[in-house]
Amino acid sequence: MDESKIKKILESVKSGKLSVNAAFNRFKHLPYEDLSFAKVDHHRHIRQGIPEVIFAEGKKVEDVIAIARSMYRKSKKLLITKVSKEIYDALKIKDAVFYPSSGTISVGGEKKRKGHILILSAGTSDIPVAEEAEVTASFLGSRVEGIYDVGVAGIHRLVDIKKSIDSAKVIVVVAGMEGALPSVVGSFTDKPIIAVPTSIGYGTSLGGLTALFSMLNSCVPGIAVMNIDNGFGAGCLAHKINTLS
Amino acid sequence: MDESKIKKILESVKSGKLSVNAAFNRFKHLPYEDLSFAKVDHHRHIRQGIPEVIFAEGKKVEDVIAIARSMYRKSKKLLITKVSKEIYDALKIKDAVFYPSSGTISVGGEKKRKGHILILSAGTSDIPVAEEAEVTASFLGSRVEGIYDVGVAGIHRLVDIKKSIDSAKVIVVVAGMEGALPSVVGSFTDKPIIAVPTSIGYGTSLGGLTALFSMLNSCVPGIAVMNIDNGFGAGCLAHKINTLS
Amino acid sequence: MDESKIKKILESVKSGKLSVNAAFNRFKHLPYEDLSFAKVDHHRHIRQGIPEVIFAEGKKVEDVIAIARSMYRKSKKLLITKVSKEIYDALKIKDAVFYPSSGTISVGGEKKRKGHILILSAGTSDIPVAEEAEVTASFLGSRVEGIYDVGVAGIHRLVDIKKSIDSAKVIVVVAGMEGALPSVVGSFTDKPIIAVPTSIGYGTSLGGLTALFSMLNSCVPGIAVMNIDNGFGAGCLAHKINTLS
Amino acid sequence: MDESKIKKILESVKSGKLSVNAAFNRFKHLPYEDLSFAKVDHHRHIRQGIPEVIFAEGKKVEDVIAIARSMYRKSKKLLITKVSKEIYDALKIKDAVFYPSSGTISVGGEKKRKGHILILSAGTSDIPVAEEAEVTASFLGSRVEGIYDVGVAGIHRLVDIKKSIDSAKVIVVVAGMEGALPSVVGSFTDKPIIAVPTSIGYGTSLGGLTALFSMLNSCVPGIAVMNIDNGFGAGCLAHKINTLS
Amino acid sequence: MDESKIKKILESVKSGKLSVNAAFNRFKHLPYEDLSFAKVDHHRHIRQGIPEVIFAEGKKVEDVIAIARSMYRKSKKLLITKVSKEIYDALKIKDAVFYPSSGTISVGGEKKRKGHILILSAGTSDIPVAEEAEVTASFLGSRVEGIYDVGVAGIHRLVDIKKSIDSAKVIVVVAGMEGALPSVVGSFTDKPIIAVPTSIGYGTSLGGLTALFSMLNSCVPGIAVMNIDNGFGAGCLAHKINTLS
Amino acid sequence: MDESKIKKILESVKSGKLSVNAAFNRFKHLPYEDLSFAKVDHHRHIRQGIPEVIFAEGKKVEDVIAIARSMYRKSKKLLITKVSKEIYDALKIKDAVFYPSSGTISVGGEKKRKGHILILSAGTSDIPVAEEAEVTASFLGSRVEGIYDVGVAGIHRLVDIKKSIDSAKVIVVVAGMEGALPSVVGSFTDKPIIAVPTSIGYGTSLGGLTALFSMLNSCVPGIAVMNIDNGFGAGCLAHKINTLS
Amino acid sequence: MDESKIKKILESVKSGKLSVNAAFNRFKHLPYEDLSFAKVDHHRHIRQGIPEVIFAEGKKVEDVIAIARSMYRKSKKLLITKVSKEIYDALKIKDAVFYPSSGTISVGGEKKRKGHILILSAGTSDIPVAEEAEVTASFLGSRVEGIYDVGVAGIHRLVDIKKSIDSAKVIVVVAGMEGALPSVVGSFTDKPIIAVPTSIGYGTSLGGLTALFSMLNSCVPGIAVMNIDNGFGAGCLAHKINTLS
Amino acid sequence: MDESKIKKILESVKSGKLSVNAAFNRFKHLPYEDLSFAKVDHHRHIRQGIPEVIFAEGKKVEDVIAIARSMYRKSKKLLITKVSKEIYDALKIKDAVFYPSSGTISVGGEKKRKGHILILSAGTSDIPVAEEAEVTASFLGSRVEGIYDVGVAGIHRLVDIKKSIDSAKVIVVVAGMEGALPSVVGSFTDKPIIAVPTSIGYGTSLGGLTALFSMLNSCVPGIAVMNIDNGFGAGCLAHKINTLS
Repeated sequence: MDESKIKKILESVKSGKLSVNAAFNRFKHLPYEDLSFAKVDHHRHIRQGIPEVIFAEGKKVEDVIAIARSMYRKSKKLLITKVSKEIYDALKIKDAVFYPSSGTISVGGEKKRKGHILILSAGTSDIPVAEEAEVTASFLGSRVEGIYDVGVAGIHRLVDIKKSIDSAKVIVVVAGMEGALPSVVGSFTDKPIIAVPTSIGYGTSLGGLTALFSMLNSCVPGIAVMNIDNGFGAGCLAHKINTLS
Repeated sequence: MDESKIKKILESVKSGKLSVNAAFNRFKHLPYEDLSFAKVDHHRHIRQGIPEVIFAEGKKVEDVIAIARSMYRKSKKLLITKVSKEIYDALKIKDAVFYPSSGTISVGGEKKRKGHILILSAGTSDIPVAEEAEVTASFLGSRVEGIYDVGVAGIHRLVDIKKSIDSAKVIVVVAGMEGALPSVVGSFTDKPIIAVPTSIGYGTSLGGLTALFSMLNSCVPGIAVMNIDNGFGAGCLAHKINTLS
Repeated sequence: MDESKIKKILESVKSGKLSVNAAFNRFKHLPYEDLSFAKVDHHRHIRQGIPEVIFAEGKKVEDVIAIARSMYRKSKKLLITKVSKEIYDALKIKDAVFYPSSGTISVGGEKKRKGHILILSAGTSDIPVAEEAEVTASFLGSRVEGIYDVGVAGIHRLVDIKKSIDSAKVIVVVAGMEGALPSVVGSFTDKPIIAVPTSIGYGTSLGGLTALFSMLNSCVPGIAVMNIDNGFGAGCLAHKINTLS
Repeated sequence: MDESKIKKILESVKSGKLSVNAAFNRFKHLPYEDLSFAKVDHHRHIRQGIPEVIFAEGKKVEDVIAIARSMYRKSKKLLITKVSKEIYDALKIKDAVFYPSSGTISVGGEKKRKGHILILSAGTSDIPVAEEAEVTASFLGSRVEGIYDVGVAGIHRLVDIKKSIDSAKVIVVVAGMEGALPSVVGSFTDKPIIAVPTSIGYGTSLGGLTALFSMLNSCVPGIAVMNIDNGFGAGCLAHKINTLS
Repeated sequence: MDESKIKKILESVKSGKLSVNAAFNRFKHLPYEDLSFAKVDHHRHIRQGIPEVIFAEGKKVEDVIAIARSMYRKSKKLLITKVSKEIYDALKIKDAVFYPSSGTISVGGEKKRKGHILILSAGTSDIPVAEEAEVTASFLGSRVEGIYDVGVAGIHRLVDIKKSIDSAKVIVVVAGMEGALPSVVGSFTDKPIIAVPTSIGYGTSLGGLTALFSMLNSCVPGIAVMNIDNGFGAGCLAHKINTLS
Repeated sequence: MDESKIKKILESVKSGKLSVNAAFNRFKHLPYEDLSFAKVDHHRHIRQGIPEVIFAEGKKVEDVIAIARSMYRKSKKLLITKVSKEIYDALKIKDAVFYPSSGTISVGGEKKRKGHILILSAGTSDIPVAEEAEVTASFLGSRVEGIYDVGVAGIHRLVDIKKSIDSAKVIVVVAGMEGALPSVVGSFTDKPIIAVPTSIGYGTSLGGLTALFSMLNSCVPGIAVMNIDNGFGAGCLAHKINTLS
Repeated sequence: MDESKIKKILESVKSGKLSVNAAFNRFKHLPYEDLSFAKVDHHRHIRQGIPEVIFAEGKKVEDVIAIARSMYRKSKKLLITKVSKEIYDALKIKDAVFYPSSGTISVGGEKKRKGHILILSAGTSDIPVAEEAEVTASFLGSRVEGIYDVGVAGIHRLVDIKKSIDSAKVIVVVAGMEGALPSVVGSFTDKPIIAVPTSIGYGTSLGGLTALFSMLNSCVPGIAVMNIDNGFGAGCLAHKINTLS
Repeated sequence: MDESKIKKILESVKSGKLSVNAAFNRFKHLPYEDLSFAKVDHHRHIRQGIPEVIFAEGKKVEDVIAIARSMYRKSKKLLITKVSKEIYDALKIKDAVFYPSSGTISVGGEKKRKGHILILSAGTSDIPVAEEAEVTASFLGSRVEGIYDVGVAGIHRLVDIKKSIDSAKVIVVVAGMEGALPSVVGSFTDKPIIAVPTSIGYGTSLGGLTALFSMLNSCVPGIAVMNIDNGFGAGCLAHKINTLS
């Protein structure tokens, strides 16, 4: 129920065309959401902090393109994750940027970058997930620094990036296999850490479950854990924390 | 926001004390739930069909008793599941009935029993769960018939109860171990079947998971499956179906 | 043992060719099923409520076509689930309708639609399973309304469909990922709810197990749960409940 | 047997105190391992009852063919399981028979068939596994009868095959999904039952684990359970039991 | 429907009191089971080969005693598994024998012992399960030999029991931990082997699942596998195979 | 290597007692950690943000007390989680506060409370975990508001606490069973959400795994997930985010 | 070796063609199994490197004591693991030492200690398992150094023990929770590392499975992994490696 | 911080340009790693014993080639695992050897081979993993002997290789399915055994988990277990043990 409808009822009350009781009944029998939920609806971005995003995996090429164009027309902004080059080529949206490692398309997004998010990946194979987090947080308006391939087998490399760790507001750590990197990073810093397990590995890596459980059981208290391969979620959470005022 | 408040605003509009815009803003800034959710709240029973019930397992004796008495004072009705004899003895509510096999206490409940629910259990060890379903559905107002110990190892016994199967509106089948009874019953009838796996068994019965998965994979289409040992849930669903008009 | 055989025995008794004892022994040594099971067999539809349906997945193209044609010849009715467009094209049965999203073929089916089943899906990716439920229940003779993409992330949308919820006799809720939609719908209504987990998701969605377990553990009592992606089963159960007299 | 003992025997032979035959018997009755392992080796078929068989899955075409031909040259007998038509065509062994449903090749095998093994499958999709059991047991020399598609959803069909059940020495029951058929068959007979779960199903069939666990938890005591899809193993065990004298 | 009823109908036909059609209809509308299932019921022992047995675990002391006495009165035979000394003491049935390691009570049972079952256990901790198999098979009428503590870590001990292996008709192998003993025994013999995993072990023994899966995956073809700790089932199956004629 | 040692070397260089090369070698062969790690050690609180805390579960009474007193003497601050009343009584530290629901002891802690953390629990059984989070975050210096028993089955209650949601900087949501509450809360707000699954439930709640996986798969993007029952970790992370400047 | 060969040798001895020694050598060089198994049996310690040890868990007090005393009489050496103080007190073997943390009893054992094994534990709760490894390796004759509580959350502590790492021949690393310590230690050294997961932790530590899988997936290549809580196995392997010449 | 920088500071101290305090502060504020970790970095091979190796699985062809060439330029040594023939053909590095069964490329590697590692595989399907271990250990400088297809089903074959077992310093045992071979080998020898489970098998082999758990639960104490299919890790560990001085 938009503003004009409500005002019309009120105006009818004022002018005497509608009695108080009749007006009350009109309100009473309104689908109740009209007064409450609906208006919130126009501010979905504000309410949840994350605009609509298209998760392309498992959707048909034509569907992704149709949703993407409709969304682009409304807001000139767009983020598509787990998407193929094929869709990017067919999309034909000016200013769309394709990130081939993670399969992400970003259009528009915030120009002004705030704060500082550091994204670390343990191995080169974890880069797709790290890149998804990086593109997502950038799109939402965070300043992001990505440093890849700093795994536990070479802990000393972490030392080289201490300056980056110290200047970040929040750190995303992406790791597969035994998923130990967040614990190690956590022993160097008191910044909030977001851990993203990846499905990298074989045998008992169990498609990422081992890294996930490892992170959930970290002896460093208070690590935030995401679903396996969920770089997008990590980017969202990192952005929320990074832009808290 | 109760009626009087809304009418007061409308009256102020009518009388000219309040401009249309000001009134609109009053509505706009009302906690939106005042118009909708709150009133529904007084009718929780109607909205969800199942009055508040106390799940006693893992709660302290004194807490269960306190909640039970408060609930009883309001509605003179009460259902407590997974409860000990000790609590029953301490409860001291007149008319409370204790069912020792399932550990259920029932107070009040519907006097008039409608329809016909048939509850079958595969073995004697499944009776506690079957009894919980029986007490629950009775409490809510269904007529319930319980026939226990009719497992697959003696399929011919099912034949003896064909009359009961034919006259029931909905059938609850409780079984542990391999959980095959719902499939077998389903090959005899076209009535809606609610299957409840129990944690009865050992080794690869996996605490009821085997019976659960077996029921979910039944080759008889359309069997409704409950959580392990969830006789209460089965009683609720059976009652809802049994009393559909 | 068909009618004529039994009558012949009885006629021999009548005519004195066969003594009572000899006749009794003939009955006694008949394969016992001849008198009971066999006749039920002609009424399989009545007994189980669901006519034979072909589950095409994993069957060869030629096999599906052969079974389908034979079934169609007998009853002019046919439902094939998890089937490809390729088979549909080769089938060449007039009046066959192909539903591409779910991969379902429906031929004939009940003309008169009874009651009202509401089918909700959480996301667009859950539509194939929801459609399978919809086609199945329609085929069996239920009136079905499908409303898709009303997931938890936008709970307010549920409010828009309250009227549909209120007028339905039974509600099917299809959801993947965390499978929370049935619980949320259940907090709005006291109708029987059938929850269908889908394999939509990645990582710890575990191919639908997470949604399944989530639904089995719903804090709303009495939700009927189906196997993962089992839209067909949901359609069957919903129809049984919807057409209970 | 230490050095001195052996030397003492030899010395007695040398001195004539002990004849060659008596000495030989002394050696023969030594803890048999001293003489046994090596020679038993030439009789592997006798020791384990099952001649070498090729499990083709995951082996390269050329490797399977090479092993098969070498084996065929030695014994003129051959059984290859989980094999493709492509390999059969390339094999070019006269008298080789290819069973396309299970992907089995059988060459030679026992001519004389003994006893009676009954093999039942629950659904048409379980036939490949049932056929593998059938071909295996036949190859080894058992008389086998296969009756397929007698699942729980149509229990009455079991009645039609009571004669076969009664005349068999051992019964193999192949079933996927909820795996309930062995329990049902077991309620009709006291013959040894070998249950083979199949990977048929979806969702919580968990690739056959549900059928497997269901069979292991059967309320009918003493059902022998095989690995998932292991028709070959069932054929071997059934043959061993069927030919026990 | 007992004999007299059927004869009465036939007599009426004979005497002309009842027409053939009327008699036919009487049969047609009889509860079908009356002619078949019911009579079979009196021969349950014959039909399934295993008389009723009481699985005491999880049952109350008084219930076990009541069922046991009732069963004993009818048949003078009784087998109770997973039972405590406390129940044995309270049972007061003459001739009852209590086996403390497995917690089994045996009364009566077959006097004449047939065939030869060999039962092996891998470790001393597996003896309770092996003893349950031994008592069960003895009770049913098989001659049983139990040799315990012959695990893989001392393969050479197997050699000492070759004579027993060679003279047995069927071999039961009970093992926990890695469950490798059935494979090793199977490399020595072509007798049917029944493998029983036990819950002995810790950590990744997973309560017996590791032994179970190990046995199901044995590279020796055709090993019959039982549920974890299911010595009773192994005894039943071994007896069935041992007494096949 | 403390300051004096290094200065001594430098002084020797200055005075010419030590050549540049010799001094360089002295540095080169120093245990490298002397210059770096050791000093960081004194600032562990600063580096990781969370002072030492005692996890009492599984530790002996006397050990917990000894560690606690030693820690208290150094810093006058102390947090002990999963601790019994028995230990609290024996501890005899003035100002120690015992929280019986979660079994937490807090001594000292920050006086000045900053920001605003909102902690929600779905059911009354989840309160112990929620309280642990509350006590932890308070101890570390955050202002915390706890609102309990606002589960999905009564979504409308969430509306009543919208003001609290709006004023919080970060929200901790504690839920067992199907773990749907974080998704629902996330559809109302764009604040960072920390989800804590609890082991509350039975059957397929799988000791909290279902709630955990449900939360990891939330359709609301960017929810931070903790280990099962890890209220302490949630308190730590919430405090870190709440006090980011 | 067939009959004729043996007889030929014997005949040659008889005829004097072959001396007793030459004949003995012919037997001696026969496929070794002919002569070997039996005699090796007396030297089990030599063949497997680990003397008989008693795993007391789950055994009765009197059984453990009986086996222990018998073993002690033969060899004056004894190791009992997972044993209670109660058994130690009842054992009354002079020189027996009881280790209360791990519940181990050691009697005798090697006096001369060789090599150097370093045993690290991540937390204080892992000490029981570490101590079991320490006592075992000492008993077998290795020099062992145990350093406890050097977990990942305080990586810098590892630096303090670099000297121990450098002088050890093999390192045992005991850790629960996320099991990351072996990876971290492995990034500091090229010594063989034996990782022992413990069941320390809660929730998704899954009784040690998470630590186990984490260790199996270490990005440091070549870490040897033991069963959960298997300090004894780690002690055995460490000793074998430590004493390789 | 390289050598020259440190020497420059020392020189300034010597020449009096820099006071001792100022020099000390320069050291103090150096990124601490400059003095410690960095130098270790040049000796990574020495520190971890295993030079960098490329795990090709899941990496793009061009990436593998680029990394391989860069690595080759530096050290003239290279090991690539899980690599395709396609990459080998494109690599064009002289002296590169391709092992097609395991998909391994080896370039350079140690010329002098030390010690003796014995690698056994249970079946022909396990050869790829065994070969990977063999190539790895050879590359690192160990003398390796590979004997394949000596599984449990033919234990007597083990006897034929006793000489190899006796002369080896460490034994790698590769097995899929039930994974029993390491236990059996362990009953013949006291050498350190490294067990590698493979993903060979079907159904309940669970992709190698069954073999893995079986090995972890071996009743032979002290078997080192690797991740599933991790031939590379086994080769590394075997080499470390084989070359311990």
